[in-house]
Amino acid sequence: MSFTTIYETAMKPEWLDDNRILRNAYVPLIFSLATDAFMDRIGIDAAYRARTACTLYTLESHLHFLRQVAATDVVKVDAHILDFDKKRIHLALELRVANSADVVAASEWVLLHVHQGDKPAAASLAAEVERAIVEFRAADTAEPWQGPRSRTITVENA
Amino acid sequence: MSFTTIYETAMKPEWLDDNRILRNAYVPLIFSLATDAFMDRIGIDAAYRARTACTLYTLESHLHFLRQVAATDVVKVDAHILDFDKKRIHLALELRVANSADVVAASEWVLLHVHQGDKPAAASLAAEVERAIVEFRAADTAEPWQGPRSRTITVENA
Repeated sequence: MSFTTIYETAMKPEWLDDNRILRNAYVPLIFSLATDAFMDRIGIDAAYRARTACTLYTLESHLHFLRQVAATDVVKVDAHILDFDKKRIHLALELRVANSADVVAASEWVLLHVHQGDKPAAASLAAEVERAIVEFRAADTAEPWQGPRSRTITVENA
Repeated sequence: MSFTTIYETAMKPEWLDDNRILRNAYVPLIFSLATDAFMDRIGIDAAYRARTACTLYTLESHLHFLRQVAATDVVKVDAHILDFDKKRIHLALELRVANSADVVAASEWVLLHVHQGDKPAAASLAAEVERAIVEFRAADTAEPWQGPRSRTITVENA
Protein backbone atom coordinates (compact mmCIF):
# COMPACT_ATOMS: atom_id res chain seq x y z
CA MET A 1 0.00 0.00 0.00
CA SER A 2 1.53 3.27 -1.13
CA PHE A 3 -0.66 5.58 0.94
CA THR A 4 -0.40 6.52 4.61
CA THR A 5 -3.60 7.03 6.62
CA ILE A 6 -3.48 10.50 8.14
CA TYR A 7 -7.05 11.19 9.26
CA GLU A 8 -10.20 9.39 10.30
CA THR A 9 -13.63 10.76 11.21
CA ALA A 10 -17.23 9.72 11.75
CA MET A 11 -19.88 11.46 9.63
CA LYS A 12 -21.25 14.67 11.12
CA PRO A 13 -25.01 15.36 10.85
CA GLU A 14 -24.40 18.69 9.06
CA TRP A 15 -22.44 16.91 6.28
CA LEU A 16 -25.47 14.85 5.20
CA ASP A 17 -27.99 15.70 2.52
CA ASP A 18 -31.72 14.89 2.50
CA ASN A 19 -30.96 11.30 1.46
CA ARG A 20 -28.70 10.81 4.54
CA ILE A 21 -25.58 10.52 2.40
CA LEU A 22 -22.45 12.66 2.52
CA ARG A 23 -22.98 15.86 0.52
CA ASN A 24 -20.21 16.21 -2.09
CA ALA A 25 -19.43 19.73 -0.95
CA TYR A 26 -18.16 18.42 2.38
CA VAL A 27 -15.60 16.07 0.82
CA PRO A 28 -13.15 18.97 0.30
CA LEU A 29 -13.71 19.96 3.93
CA ILE A 30 -12.76 16.44 5.09
CA PHE A 31 -9.67 16.64 2.86
CA SER A 32 -8.87 20.03 4.38
CA LEU A 33 -9.09 18.60 7.91
CA ALA A 34 -6.85 15.75 6.72
CA THR A 35 -4.40 18.31 5.35
CA ASP A 36 -4.24 19.90 8.81
CA ALA A 37 -3.30 16.45 10.16
CA PHE A 38 -0.73 16.08 7.37
CA MET A 39 0.79 19.46 8.30
CA ASP A 40 1.15 18.33 11.92
CA ARG A 41 2.80 15.17 10.64
CA ILE A 42 5.50 17.00 8.66
CA GLY A 43 6.17 19.56 11.38
CA ILE A 44 4.06 22.48 10.13
CA ASP A 45 2.15 22.34 13.42
CA ALA A 46 0.71 25.14 15.55
CA ALA A 47 4.09 25.80 17.23
CA TYR A 48 5.88 26.03 13.85
CA ARG A 49 3.19 28.31 12.48
CA ALA A 50 3.39 30.60 15.53
CA ARG A 51 7.22 30.64 15.46
CA THR A 52 7.70 31.20 11.71
CA ALA A 53 4.43 32.92 10.69
CA CYS A 54 4.42 30.40 7.83
CA THR A 55 1.71 27.95 6.80
CA LEU A 56 0.52 26.06 3.72
CA TYR A 57 -1.94 27.66 1.29
CA THR A 58 -3.92 25.58 -1.19
CA LEU A 59 -3.27 26.80 -4.74
CA GLU A 60 -5.18 24.12 -6.61
CA SER A 61 -7.37 21.07 -6.04
CA HIS A 62 -8.69 18.43 -8.42
CA LEU A 63 -11.27 15.95 -7.16
CA HIS A 64 -13.04 12.92 -8.55
CA PHE A 65 -16.20 11.80 -6.74
CA LEU A 66 -16.55 8.06 -7.16
CA ARG A 67 -18.91 6.62 -4.55
CA GLN A 68 -21.55 7.60 -2.02
CA VAL A 69 -20.95 7.54 1.73
CA ALA A 70 -23.73 6.65 4.17
CA ALA A 71 -24.52 8.51 7.38
CA THR A 72 -23.27 5.61 9.49
CA ASP A 73 -19.88 5.24 7.81
CA VAL A 74 -16.54 6.13 9.36
CA VAL A 75 -14.19 7.55 6.71
CA LYS A 76 -10.43 7.82 6.51
CA VAL A 77 -8.06 9.85 4.37
CA ASP A 78 -4.86 8.35 2.96
CA ALA A 79 -2.03 10.57 1.73
CA HIS A 80 0.79 10.18 -0.75
CA ILE A 81 3.35 12.89 -1.55
CA LEU A 82 3.58 12.96 -5.34
CA ASP A 83 6.28 15.61 -5.50
CA PHE A 84 7.70 18.61 -3.65
CA ASP A 85 10.22 21.39 -4.05
CA LYS A 86 11.55 24.17 -1.78
CA LYS A 87 8.16 25.87 -1.51
CA ARG A 88 5.49 23.52 -2.82
CA ILE A 89 4.01 20.09 -2.09
CA HIS A 90 1.99 18.10 -4.63
CA LEU A 91 -0.18 15.80 -2.54
CA ALA A 92 -2.58 12.99 -3.43
CA LEU A 93 -5.40 12.33 -0.95
CA GLU A 94 -7.90 9.48 -1.13
CA LEU A 95 -11.09 9.17 0.91
CA ARG A 96 -12.20 5.66 1.87
CA VAL A 97 -14.82 4.18 4.14
CA ALA A 98 -12.82 2.69 7.01
CA ASN A 99 -12.13 -1.03 6.48
CA SER A 100 -12.88 -0.79 2.75
CA ALA A 101 -10.41 -0.70 -0.12
CA ASP A 102 -12.86 1.24 -2.32
CA VAL A 103 -11.92 4.85 -2.96
CA VAL A 104 -14.85 7.22 -2.36
CA ALA A 105 -13.06 10.33 -3.66
CA ALA A 106 -9.60 10.72 -5.21
CA SER A 107 -7.84 14.06 -5.28
CA GLU A 108 -4.68 16.00 -5.96
CA TRP A 109 -3.59 19.19 -4.21
CA VAL A 110 -0.92 21.81 -4.81
CA LEU A 111 0.11 23.40 -1.51
CA LEU A 112 2.36 26.45 -1.22
CA HIS A 113 4.44 27.36 1.85
CA VAL A 114 3.59 31.00 2.57
CA HIS A 115 4.94 33.57 5.02
CA GLN A 116 1.86 35.36 6.29
CA GLY A 117 1.88 39.05 7.00
CA ASP A 118 0.55 42.25 5.52
CA LYS A 119 1.66 40.93 2.16
CA PRO A 120 1.78 37.11 2.12
CA ALA A 121 4.70 35.73 0.11
CA ALA A 122 5.93 32.25 -0.79
CA ALA A 123 8.76 31.10 1.50
CA SER A 124 11.14 28.14 1.60
CA LEU A 125 10.21 25.20 3.80
CA ALA A 126 12.30 24.84 6.97
CA ALA A 127 15.03 22.19 6.73
CA GLU A 128 13.34 20.01 9.39
CA VAL A 129 10.10 20.08 7.39
CA GLU A 130 11.93 18.99 4.25
CA ARG A 131 13.46 16.12 6.25
CA ALA A 132 10.01 15.11 7.55
CA ILE A 133 8.66 15.12 3.98
CA VAL A 134 11.49 12.86 2.83
CA GLU A 135 10.78 10.51 5.77
CA PHE A 136 7.04 10.50 5.03
CA ARG A 137 7.75 9.50 1.43
CA ALA A 138 10.27 6.86 2.49
CA ALA A 139 7.58 5.14 4.60
CA ASP A 140 5.59 4.51 1.43
CA THR A 141 6.18 1.17 -0.18
CA ALA A 142 5.09 3.04 -3.27
CA GLU A 143 2.98 1.49 -5.90
CA PRO A 144 3.01 4.19 -8.56
CA TRP A 145 0.08 6.62 -8.19
CA GLN A 146 -2.41 5.95 -10.96
CA GLY A 147 -4.26 9.21 -10.46
CA PRO A 148 -7.99 9.72 -10.14
CA ARG A 149 -8.54 9.58 -13.88
CA SER A 150 -7.93 5.85 -13.91
CA ARG A 151 -10.79 5.18 -11.49
CA THR A 152 -14.05 3.71 -12.64
CA ILE A 153 -17.14 5.81 -12.05
CA THR A 154 -19.70 3.65 -10.21
CA VAL A 155 -22.82 5.38 -11.53
CA GLU A 156 -24.01 3.27 -14.44
CA ASN A 157 -23.96 4.43 -18.05
CA ALA A 158 -21.88 7.49 -17.29
CA MET B 1 -19.04 39.59 -19.88
CA SER B 2 -19.55 35.93 -20.68
CA PHE B 3 -20.65 34.78 -17.23
CA THR B 4 -24.06 34.97 -15.59
CA THR B 5 -24.30 35.68 -11.85
CA ILE B 6 -26.27 32.88 -10.23
CA TYR B 7 -25.59 33.22 -6.50
CA GLU B 8 -24.59 35.81 -3.93
CA THR B 9 -23.94 35.44 -0.21
CA ALA B 10 -22.43 37.24 2.77
CA MET B 11 -19.65 35.46 4.63
CA LYS B 12 -20.80 33.16 7.45
CA PRO B 13 -18.82 33.11 10.71
CA GLU B 14 -18.24 29.34 10.46
CA TRP B 15 -16.52 29.80 7.07
CA LEU B 16 -13.72 31.94 8.55
CA ASP B 17 -10.35 30.80 9.81
CA ASP B 18 -8.34 32.25 12.72
CA ASN B 19 -7.18 35.14 10.53
CA ARG B 20 -10.81 36.12 9.75
CA ILE B 21 -10.49 35.16 6.10
CA LEU B 22 -12.54 32.61 4.17
CA ARG B 23 -11.15 29.11 4.74
CA ASN B 24 -10.35 27.47 1.39
CA ALA B 25 -12.36 24.38 2.29
CA TYR B 26 -15.58 26.40 2.23
CA VAL B 27 -15.08 27.65 -1.33
CA PRO B 28 -16.38 24.33 -2.77
CA LEU B 29 -19.38 24.63 -0.43
CA ILE B 30 -20.18 28.10 -1.83
CA PHE B 31 -19.84 26.66 -5.35
CA SER B 32 -22.15 23.81 -4.33
CA LEU B 33 -24.79 26.26 -3.08
CA ALA B 34 -24.36 28.16 -6.36
CA THR B 35 -24.86 24.89 -8.25
CA ASP B 36 -28.18 24.44 -6.42
CA ALA B 37 -29.18 27.89 -7.70
CA PHE B 38 -27.99 26.93 -11.20
CA MET B 39 -30.14 23.77 -11.06
CA ASP B 40 -33.20 25.87 -10.16
CA ARG B 41 -32.34 28.14 -13.08
CA ILE B 42 -32.32 25.32 -15.66
CA GLY B 43 -35.42 23.64 -14.29
CA ILE B 44 -33.87 20.91 -12.13
CA ASP B 45 -35.68 22.40 -9.15
CA ALA B 46 -37.32 20.69 -6.15
CA ALA B 47 -40.54 19.98 -8.11
CA TYR B 48 -38.58 18.40 -11.00
CA ARG B 49 -36.49 16.34 -8.60
CA ALA B 50 -39.60 15.10 -6.76
CA ARG B 51 -41.45 14.34 -10.03
CA THR B 52 -38.60 12.60 -11.89
CA ALA B 53 -36.43 11.25 -9.01
CA CYS B 54 -33.55 12.74 -11.01
CA THR B 55 -30.88 15.20 -9.88
CA LEU B 56 -27.32 16.25 -10.76
CA TYR B 57 -24.34 14.46 -9.20
CA THR B 58 -20.87 16.01 -9.23
CA LEU B 59 -18.37 13.69 -10.93
CA GLU B 60 -15.37 15.96 -10.93
CA SER B 61 -14.21 19.38 -9.76
CA HIS B 62 -11.07 21.36 -10.47
CA LEU B 63 -10.42 24.54 -8.49
CA HIS B 64 -7.79 27.26 -8.49
CA PHE B 65 -7.58 29.43 -5.37
CA LEU B 66 -6.37 32.86 -6.41
CA ARG B 67 -7.16 35.43 -3.73
CA GLN B 68 -8.19 35.79 -0.10
CA VAL B 69 -11.67 36.89 0.97
CA ALA B 70 -12.19 38.98 4.10
CA ALA B 71 -14.89 38.38 6.73
CA THR B 72 -16.77 41.49 5.69
CA ASP B 73 -16.96 40.71 1.97
CA VAL B 74 -20.09 39.73 0.05
CA VAL B 75 -19.24 37.17 -2.64
CA LYS B 76 -20.98 36.15 -5.83
CA VAL B 77 -20.70 33.18 -8.15
CA ASP B 78 -20.81 33.56 -11.93
CA ALA B 79 -21.55 30.59 -14.17
CA HIS B 80 -20.76 29.69 -17.75
CA ILE B 81 -21.84 26.44 -19.44
CA LEU B 82 -18.73 25.18 -21.23
CA ASP B 83 -20.40 22.16 -22.79
CA PHE B 84 -23.23 19.65 -22.29
CA ASP B 85 -24.64 16.47 -23.77
CA LYS B 86 -27.72 14.32 -23.07
CA LYS B 87 -26.58 13.45 -19.54
CA ARG B 88 -23.73 15.73 -18.55
CA ILE B 89 -23.01 19.42 -18.03
CA HIS B 90 -19.49 20.89 -18.01
CA LEU B 91 -19.80 24.07 -15.98
CA ALA B 92 -17.34 26.86 -15.17
CA LEU B 93 -17.94 28.75 -11.93
CA GLU B 94 -16.04 31.80 -10.74
CA LEU B 95 -16.13 33.31 -7.26
CA ARG B 96 -15.76 37.08 -6.97
CA VAL B 97 -16.13 39.64 -4.24
CA ALA B 98 -19.29 41.54 -5.16
CA ASN B 99 -18.48 44.73 -7.11
CA SER B 100 -15.00 43.51 -8.00
CA ALA B 101 -13.79 42.09 -11.30
CA ASP B 102 -11.07 40.07 -9.57
CA VAL B 103 -11.65 36.32 -9.53
CA VAL B 104 -11.15 34.82 -6.05
CA ALA B 105 -11.48 31.19 -7.18
CA ALA B 106 -11.95 29.71 -10.66
CA SER B 107 -13.37 26.25 -11.16
CA GLU B 108 -14.70 23.66 -13.55
CA TRP B 109 -17.31 21.01 -12.76
CA VAL B 110 -18.58 17.89 -14.48
CA LEU B 111 -22.19 17.21 -13.47
CA LEU B 112 -24.09 14.04 -14.33
CA HIS B 113 -27.90 13.75 -14.50
CA VAL B 114 -28.76 10.72 -12.37
CA HIS B 115 -31.96 8.82 -11.68
CA GLN B 116 -31.87 8.09 -7.97
CA GLY B 117 -33.15 4.87 -6.55
CA ASP B 118 -31.81 1.66 -5.09
CA LYS B 119 -29.25 1.67 -7.88
CA PRO B 120 -28.59 5.19 -9.15
CA ALA B 121 -28.06 5.35 -12.93
CA ALA B 122 -27.26 8.10 -15.42
CA ALA B 123 -30.40 9.37 -17.18
CA SER B 124 -31.12 11.73 -20.07
CA LEU B 125 -32.01 15.32 -19.24
CA ALA B 126 -35.67 16.23 -19.78
CA ALA B 127 -36.32 18.15 -23.02
CA GLU B 128 -37.35 21.30 -21.11
CA VAL B 129 -34.07 21.23 -19.18
CA GLU B 130 -32.10 20.96 -22.42
CA ARG B 131 -34.01 23.97 -23.74
CA ALA B 132 -33.26 25.93 -20.56
CA ILE B 133 -29.55 25.07 -20.92
CA VAL B 134 -29.55 26.33 -24.51
CA GLU B 135 -31.27 29.56 -23.38
CA PHE B 136 -28.81 30.02 -20.50
CA ARG B 137 -25.91 29.72 -22.96
CA ALA B 138 -27.56 32.06 -25.47
CA ALA B 139 -27.74 34.78 -22.80
CA ASP B 140 -23.92 34.77 -22.64
CA THR B 141 -22.25 37.31 -24.83
CA ALA B 142 -19.45 34.79 -24.70
CA GLU B 143 -15.90 35.83 -24.50
CA PRO B 144 -14.17 32.48 -24.87
CA TRP B 145 -13.46 30.87 -21.48
CA GLN B 146 -9.74 31.13 -20.74
CA GLY B 147 -9.85 28.54 -17.98
CA PRO B 148 -8.40 28.83 -14.48
CA ARG B 149 -4.91 27.91 -15.65
CA SER B 150 -4.51 31.25 -17.33
CA ARG B 151 -5.05 33.17 -14.08
CA THR B 152 -2.16 34.75 -12.24
CA ILE B 153 -1.54 33.55 -8.71
CA THR B 154 -1.44 36.60 -6.42
CA VAL B 155 0.90 35.17 -3.79
CA GLU B 156 4.35 36.47 -4.65
CA ASN B 157 7.18 34.25 -5.87
CA ALA B 158 4.94 31.25 -6.37
